Amino acid sequence: MFKKKDIFFKTLEEMADTIVEATEYFAKGVSDLSDVTAFAKRMKEYESQCDQYTHTILKELNKTFITPIEREDIMALTTSLDDVLDGIEACASRFEMYHIREKDEYITLFADVLVRSTHQIKSAIYLLTQKKLLAIREHCIAINELENQGDDVLRVSITTLFANVKDPIELIKRKEIYERLEQTTDYCEDVANTLESIIMRNS
Amino acid sequence: MFKKKDIFFKTLEEMADTIVEATEYFAKGVSDLSDVTAFAKRMKEYESQCDQYTHTILKELNKTFITPIEREDIMALTTSLDDVLDGIEACASRFEMYHIREKDEYITLFADVLVRSTHQIKSAIYLLTQKKLLAIREHCIAINELENQGDDVLRVSITTLFANVKDPIELIKRKEIYERLEQTTDYCEDVANTLESIIMRNS
Amino acid sequence: MFKKKDIFFKTLEEMADTIVEATEYFAKGVSDLSDVTAFAKRMKEYESQCDQYTHTILKELNKTFITPIEREDIMALTTSLDDVLDGIEACASRFEMYHIREKDEYITLFADVLVRSTHQIKSAIYLLTQKKLLAIREHCIAINELENQGDDVLRVSITTLFANVKDPIELIKRKEIYERLEQTTDYCEDVANTLESIIMRNS
Repeated sequence: MFKKKDIFFKTLEEMADTIVEATEYFAKGVSDLSDVTAFAKRMKEYESQCDQYTHTILKELNKTFITPIEREDIMALTTSLDDVLDGIEACASRFEMYHIREKDEYITLFADVLVRSTHQIKSAIYLLTQKKLLAIREHCIAINELENQGDDVLRVSITTLFANVKDPIELIKRKEIYERLEQTTDYCEDVANTLESIIMRNS
Repeated sequence: MFKKKDIFFKTLEEMADTIVEATEYFAKGVSDLSDVTAFAKRMKEYESQCDQYTHTILKELNKTFITPIEREDIMALTTSLDDVLDGIEACASRFEMYHIREKDEYITLFADVLVRSTHQIKSAIYLLTQKKLLAIREHCIAINELENQGDDVLRVSITTLFANVKDPIELIKRKEIYERLEQTTDYCEDVANTLESIIMRNS
Repeated sequence: MFKKKDIFFKTLEEMADTIVEATEYFAKGVSDLSDVTAFAKRMKEYESQCDQYTHTILKELNKTFITPIEREDIMALTTSLDDVLDGIEACASRFEMYHIREKDEYITLFADVLVRSTHQIKSAIYLLTQKKLLAIREHCIAINELENQGDDVLRVSITTLFANVKDPIELIKRKEIYERLEQTTDYCEDVANTLESIIMRNS
């Protein structure tokens, strides 16, 4: 049983590591769009890796009776961590599908928000696995603030897009990427919300 | 424990009041687009207020063992009530971001459906807190009918849009707002569905 | 109680039958767009029929204490089966709303993936109701592979669309239908995921 505990916490840590690494890779990628095919391919690999971790956790959950934290919480954390990586992978693949070659300052801003959010998520997950529940809260607050920043970036980026871009197809591409990036900050917030309810119920 | 009960029911009532007030404000706002910035700002305030209520309920749920109705039901009601207000706030903010200045008859129709739906929701929530479960059903039926009306307005509005509007950027703006408004009627139906399952299990 | 068991399993079988029939009708419909109004109307009837089955299951769930499989699993299966039919019905209604008259090879490919997925779903549901749990797994694997094919069709179809179609309104229409069809393959995968967790917990 103690081994089982390890599997859940170890896999959650691995997911958090992968998400930080993938988001940093994403942030570098969007500042250098010279090879979007390689960029999209690498992001897809990160996403598959995260799918594997998700599968491991679900499989273990289905055969384990006693879990280190409530199974609904493990499930919710896993799903929202997976959503974060799916979100940035979907954006990376749009760079390829839409043949985007030019850098975009708003995408850079979103990527920066996401890098900072995923670092906060990683810190919070490691505190969870060390059972330092109360110390998690400040990271949740930081993630919520970053999600608000994501909302602000969306408002400004979409307003600017509609004010300046007259080519509708260009507008469609940018709008979708901005919205997907903002939604990814919402998935980060879902992680924070689950963590907050774990803290509340256990302290 | 009795005080705890009061907190859940009192906060659900406050959420319902806020949603009715916000939807009526929204309906007035879309018929007078002279100051979309002030309009979007006020809608954002309603949304923040509703977030506060959601936070109160989640916090209480996490520290309360005995709840007046099942915790999953309180959670589902809170989430879908919050979704309703998020939905109309997102529309209001698009009026600002997209610099929409002209009235739109379909948006007026959607707003009217939503005003009627939120009044039905409010009546149903007050019957729930008074434990008059059986009387809730007729309001659920009314909300379902209004959601069907929302579907019809979407079908007609989108058909008309694609038949008449030749400017693709104008089309993108209207299409998104219509779809978000229709989705908000779906969130109202989620409230009704949760209420119906509460009735069925308790009568 | 045994009768109750029958109601859940019988209704799930009826849902699976309807979904296969509706998806085959959809596949035929998208290859002959001579009467999109009749096509959309018939798909709407299938969707209403499926809503009835969903309602039956929810009503029974709310008044039954002992269910043949866990109630959360019945709920999850019902919801994702319903999502599959909602997904293709939404596409059919876009053919009508957008006055689409020309066949599209990618829509044909998606329809073919969905026909094969729903046949796999039907086989899996009938194995579930016969309690042949272990035999379900191969159908889940097939559904997952078909979902990957759906991802590939989306990537190619969207890339081709943005490379070739210069009319933004035409692009908006096709893009939405492709995305909705791909999402419907995701709903099929949700069915498979629920079935897999039922197998894991019961074998």
